[in-house]
Formats: sequence, structure tokens, C-alpha cells
Amino acid sequence: MSFPSQQLLQLSSWIEVPAQSDFPIQNLPMGIFSEANTALRAATRIGDTIIDLAALQAIGLLENLSLPPNIFAQATLNNFIKTGKKSWSALRQRLLEIFDKENPELRDNAAAREKVLFSMENVRMHLPVSVGDYTDFYASKEHATNVGIMFRGKENALMPNWLHLPVGYHGRASSVLVSGTPVRRPMGQMRPDATQPPVFGATRLLDFEVEMAYIAAQGKPLGERISTAEAEDYIFGLSVFNDWSARDIQSWEYVPLGPFLGKNFASSLAPWIVSLEALEPFRVAAPEPVEPLLPYLQYKGKKAFDIHLEVLLKTPQGEQQSIAKTNFKYMYWTIAQQMAHHTINGCNINAGDILASGTISGSTPDSYGSMLELTWRGQNPLLLADGSMRKFLEDGDTLTIKAWAEKDGLRIGLGEVSGEILPAFPYDESQ
Amino acid sequence: MSFPSQQLLQLSSWIEVPAQSDFPIQNLPMGIFSEANTALRAATRIGDTIIDLAALQAIGLLENLSLPPNIFAQATLNNFIKTGKKSWSALRQRLLEIFDKENPELRDNAAAREKVLFSMENVRMHLPVSVGDYTDFYASKEHATNVGIMFRGKENALMPNWLHLPVGYHGRASSVLVSGTPVRRPMGQMRPDATQPPVFGATRLLDFEVEMAYIAAQGKPLGERISTAEAEDYIFGLSVFNDWSARDIQSWEYVPLGPFLGKNFASSLAPWIVSLEALEPFRVAAPEPVEPLLPYLQYKGKKAFDIHLEVLLKTPQGEQQSIAKTNFKYMYWTIAQQMAHHTINGCNINAGDILASGTISGSTPDSYGSMLELTWRGQNPLLLADGSMRKFLEDGDTLTIKAWAEKDGLRIGLGEVSGEILPAFPYDESQ
Repeated sequence: MSFPSQQLLQLSSWIEVPAQSDFPIQNLPMGIFSEANTALRAATRIGDTIIDLAALQAIGLLENLSLPPNIFAQATLNNFIKTGKKSWSALRQRLLEIFDKENPELRDNAAAREKVLFSMENVRMHLPVSVGDYTDFYASKEHATNVGIMFRGKENALMPNWLHLPVGYHGRASSVLVSGTPVRRPMGQMRPDATQPPVFGATRLLDFEVEMAYIAAQGKPLGERISTAEAEDYIFGLSVFNDWSARDIQSWEYVPLGPFLGKNFASSLAPWIVSLEALEPFRVAAPEPVEPLLPYLQYKGKKAFDIHLEVLLKTPQGEQQSIAKTNFKYMYWTIAQQMAHHTINGCNINAGDILASGTISGSTPDSYGSMLELTWRGQNPLLLADGSMRKFLEDGDTLTIKAWAEKDGLRIGLGEVSGEILPAFPYDESQ
Repeated sequence: MSFPSQQLLQLSSWIEVPAQSDFPIQNLPMGIFSEANTALRAATRIGDTIIDLAALQAIGLLENLSLPPNIFAQATLNNFIKTGKKSWSALRQRLLEIFDKENPELRDNAAAREKVLFSMENVRMHLPVSVGDYTDFYASKEHATNVGIMFRGKENALMPNWLHLPVGYHGRASSVLVSGTPVRRPMGQMRPDATQPPVFGATRLLDFEVEMAYIAAQGKPLGERISTAEAEDYIFGLSVFNDWSARDIQSWEYVPLGPFLGKNFASSLAPWIVSLEALEPFRVAAPEPVEPLLPYLQYKGKKAFDIHLEVLLKTPQGEQQSIAKTNFKYMYWTIAQQMAHHTINGCNINAGDILASGTISGSTPDSYGSMLELTWRGQNPLLLADGSMRKFLEDGDTLTIKAWAEKDGLRIGLGEVSGEILPAFPYDESQ
């Protein structure tokens, strides 16, 4: 059974969904949860209710899906992701059925409901995947231009390769954290004064980067390629991502091999992964390419997504306040192009790998996706509602990024990714 | 029981060790093997005899070591690595005992020997670890200078940061291959003529990089640091590594975020990991630092290792021949400094992670660790014994790197890492 789009829009669930919730029945994101002292397992969510997929399978409600036994009674989604696109889609269709308000199967079975449903308040969310490799792109023209102007001047803002290929690099998989995990201010080497030797200390220029992450499915064997036409079949879903950055460490270290310690101390991922199927109504055309593209980067159809992103900052003294709004649709390079480029040399992608967009900036100063751009390298500090100023992030600040798509009364949200800055650990020179 | 160094030198095994073998009883490297249709499991090696550690534990010969049951009956060494340095050392001491020619325990037990010993000819070696993250450094001053001269001229050869910190970047974990796996020539985007648009095709500048890899132990939690004094406790052992590179893809893509598709199609690791304990007799002082070092990069003692490296090329028509000889001791930045730098910002390291030295070049042209340097970007092609010329690697070439330490009649080898170049897969534009 499959719901045509008009019928899908009209579906509603017997589980209550608060107004403006990110999680109507049409969303059905996937994540990993635990409650009290129980084991980690897979979940989806409707409104503020967590649906335990391991329990749903255990009581037999998923038995026509030909899934491996206990596929959801695992601490990561990796093995479920490996079952492939048809399997993800079949699960989605079955969940749309089970939670449809007309369906009594689970709705009217109190004992089963007891096993399957949990309140969001009583659970803890975990990193949804075991990350094999994490790749970060640099795919927003506005962001690359802004950073280029600051570091190389207006004439040389975009590097010669930028309009010809989606520039990317490998990030650190071990330090990808689930939203809510505090982030320790990193220490390191930097050279604030180019006429003096480098110095050691805690970063003074701690920043966030607004990004969308996409979680890879199991790709092709090493040596084979994924075309732009095939690329979305190898994407399990989207999530919100913050690629924390220490700008002073980064700017001293990054020549010529790219960012390293300025980035690899932490990256934060939202706990929910939203499928491309759920985001289907929000497809839009990407910006027109400025330069002709080589055939392997060409594609047909709408491969960008209209997803709003909002950045919120809470200082230790103040209330949470919005400091920027941007949109995933601004990206110059689509996720299909990024995936095709990543594998054009035969590089293999595994289930659970994270690919991220890079900072997403719009064309206006209030749509920039990092403190570096919002304050223009600290030249124009943000004045906050509590009267304090910010050039970069300070200890005790909590930075949150929210993402959602909205159209014709349907809101599909990706939830949020959030992290509080902890002060640096003192360095003991006698170590 | 522990063997003092003089006594260790005099040890010999009841297993035959051919003259000039890399694997006397003093070596005891670790790897993962299988034979016929049996499961993957851990092994060590003496001469050309494989010692099945899973079988050795199963028959009770390791029972005083308080190891977890079946710790060697696994497809990777990761869980054994997590048991820690004391445990690795205890295993080594016990193996020195069991295989000492005076010890009858196993020597005189034919039924047990049958279960434990295999001929190298009858087994297949596998990737010894599951690689969580792979980091590549750029730690040879001669290599960084050579590449710098070629790309930026003699005056700007070393970047301003190079003498102050061990420059490094994240590589691709998914495409790390065990020695012997053929390597497919990658295709990609490049711009051989800077006055023309970029083109697509198979790389024309396929290269190797002579590197030493070191396999990490389980590090400290995210946010904590490993000092230079502690660093070697977090290194399980060394192996030989080839970081295959496509120079034309790399030079077009790498600005400003570093190497990506020019590297991530394949990196090859030797099947054996040799412990620092086995390499203890070969410690030497590293080159004196040219610039004063920040305290976190300072260290005491001899932290470089005198390990010879030799590069051998076999063309489809010709015999294998030596094309370069270099030495791990030339590295400007030691592995202790690299590990301390990697974690100074709190970045976490996990058991099985690979850290690699970057290309190791010496000061003379015959000691350069890449075709890029040996042929000076193709300007001085190598004339081979079969009459053919090489600027870079061609299809059908097999490139092998051997590594060994030798002193006072003791030879501890790391074996070799080898790979044959397969032609590029044709690209189908209708894909």
C-alpha cells in the first residue's frame, strides 16, 4: 500500500501531534533511543511520542516487511540502512498504516501500546549511526565567497576550481557527537601576530557552521561510481549538523593540506534522520550553474530542497534568541552532485557515513551560517538582547540550529542540533 | 618472565627462520589471516610459519595472560588492541617463551602444533584492523621542501607553519586496503592547461608515497590530551604504508581544503604490525628542530626509529627493481610529536585508527619517496632495466615498499606493502 501525495497530506495519526510540531505522521524520522536502564534501540517519532521500532517488530506488527530479526534492537541504524532503499520505503508505508487514525491494530491494543510508545520526556537520544567516514563539502557559493573575501580579497574570493567541482575534504569521524553533548573549547597552536612566533592557548575564535548532513546508504564496491541520477538512492536521509570550528587554529594550520585541529575536536549531529521520501514535497531547483559542468556533474530534475534553517544563541545570562536564518536551497552544489563527485574516482561509501554540505549562507548578512561571516571576522560584533556582545562563541553559550520544511500546511521538521560550550581544560606543562 | 636485551638477542626459536628473514623470534608481529575456508583470526609469524593465536589460546597455552576468551578468534585486532599496552607486552613475553628453542611445551606436542602452525604459502592475509579514522601527516622536511620547490619555488618551499607543527589532515578510512589488493587507476577532474577549462579522464600522474603507518591504541576520552611522554603508550605498532596519489586530480582540487579525490581511491597497508617493543633496539635521535618548539611538542629521549625503506617497481615486461631507498629516521616530526599534536585540542583516538607519517624522503635524489620527486614532476623520467621509461606509474606496474631494521646481527622486518595498478574503468556518459 502506498499513499498518493494528496492522500498523504490528509493523513493524520491517532497519536496526538501538537500544533507546529516538526513530527507529523508524514515525517517518520529515524533515530536511536534508550529509556531508563534499557538497551539502545531504533525509534521513529510522531509528535512528542517515541515509537520503539524494536518493540513494534517484536510484537509482530512489522512481520510482512521481510526484515532481518532484531534489526531495530541495535545501538545504531547501520544494519537497517544496509537493507536498502526499498526496505526503508516499505517500513515507511507500514508505519503510515499502523499510525493512521482509522487503523485500530495498535490504537486499540493497550498492552501493545504500552510496549511500543514512550514519551519524549522519558527517553534519551543517541548518535543514530556509527560513522565510518565523515566528509565535509564547501558547497555554498555565498559562504565560499564571504570567506574568500575575508582571507584573499574580493578579486580572488572564489578559488579557480570552485565553480567546476564541489570542493570537499575528509573530517574526523570519532568526534561526531549527538545533539546535546557539551563541547569543550579546544586549545592549540595559533599565530595571531604574523610578525611573532606562534603561541599556545585556548581558541579565541570559536565558531559554529550551519550545515545539513546526509547519511549514506551502503554504496558500490571500491572502484565503481555513483552517478548523479543514482545518487539519491544512496542517501538514507538528512539531518542538521554543526561543524564547530576554531578559526585561529584553523587559519594557522590549514595550508597546504586543509583543516585539521581547527575542526576535529567536535561536530554535532541532530538525533533524527529524515528520509528524502518525507521531504519529496519540498524539492526545488538548485541555482543555475555559472560555468558549464563536466557530464558527470550534470543532472536532471529538482535536486535541491527548500529547508529553512535558523540559528539560536543562548548566553549564560540571557534568553535564547535567533541570530540568523538561512535555507538549504541556497546550496550551489546539490547532494546528488556531491555524491557523484565523491565516488567518481571509485571511492567507496559505506552505510552510516556522513556527508555534510559545508556552511550554508544566503546572500544577505542576516542569512550567514557562521559567526565568522555574521560578525565579519569580529569587526561587527552581534549585540544581543541581554546587552552582551559576541564576536565569536563564549564559554557557557548554547548554540542551537533548527531545520524544517513547510508548504501547503505540511511541516516536516528535522528537529535541532544543540551544544553548550564548556571552558577549556587547563594545560599542565609538567605533563 | 622478561628477557633482558642481551639475552633477547641470543634467543632463537625451534621454528626454522631462513637467513635474512624479516621475522626472527624477536619480531613477533601481529596480523589477521585465514586459510582455506576458515574464519579470519589473529596470528603472529616466525620465519615463514604462521602462528594461529586463536588456536594457541584455545588449547590453553595463553591461559595465564588473563585475556578475554576468544580475543584472537576475531576478524580484526581492534579488541585485542583495546586490552592495552601491558597486555600486548605480556603476550609478547609468553610467545618468546613458547617458541624458545629450549621450550618443549608446544615443540614436542605434535597434535597441538598441527592446530597452531600454518605455512605462509597456505594462508591469506587480511587488513589487520578495522580503521575508524585515518590521519596522514606531512612530517618529512625533505619531502615538504621538494614538493614546495616544485609548486611554489625555492624561496617559499616550506609554508610558514611547517617548522612549528606537524602538518596533518584526515584521509579516507574506507579505502585502506591490505597489501596485495590491486589498485584501480582513478578517473576524475583535472586542469592540465590552466588557460583551458578543466577536463575529465583517467589520472595521468598516478604516484605512490612511501610512508610508515602507526596503529593507535584506545586513546583518552574526547577533550583530553596525550602528551609526548605518554604518546608511545598509545601506539600498538608500526606498519608499512603506501598512500597512492593522483597528482593531477590532487593539484586541481586541493585548494583550499586539502587533498580529497586525489588520495581517497586507495591507500595500502602491510599485513603485519610490529610492536615498538620489538623495535626498541633501533631507536635513534630525530633531527634537531630548526625552530624552538612550543612545550607541548617538546620531548626527551630517542623517539625516532632507524628503519630502512626500499621501493621496488615491477613493470609488466620487466623484473622487479629497486628505484629508491630511504629511512624512517629522516622524519623531522616524531610519532610522539604527531600523536601529541593530534590530541592537543582534545581530539579522540580509537583503537585501530591509522596515523601515517606522510611521504618519507631523504636528502639525496635516490632517497625520494614518490615518483613526483624521483622524476621531478616527470622532468627526469626513470630509465628501467627493461628499457622502458617511467614518469609516473603505468597500468600493470606493481609497486612494492619493503621496510626493515637491522643492527648487531638482528633484523626486524615489517614485511612489505604491494599493489598492482589496474587500468581505469571506462566511463559511460549515458549512466
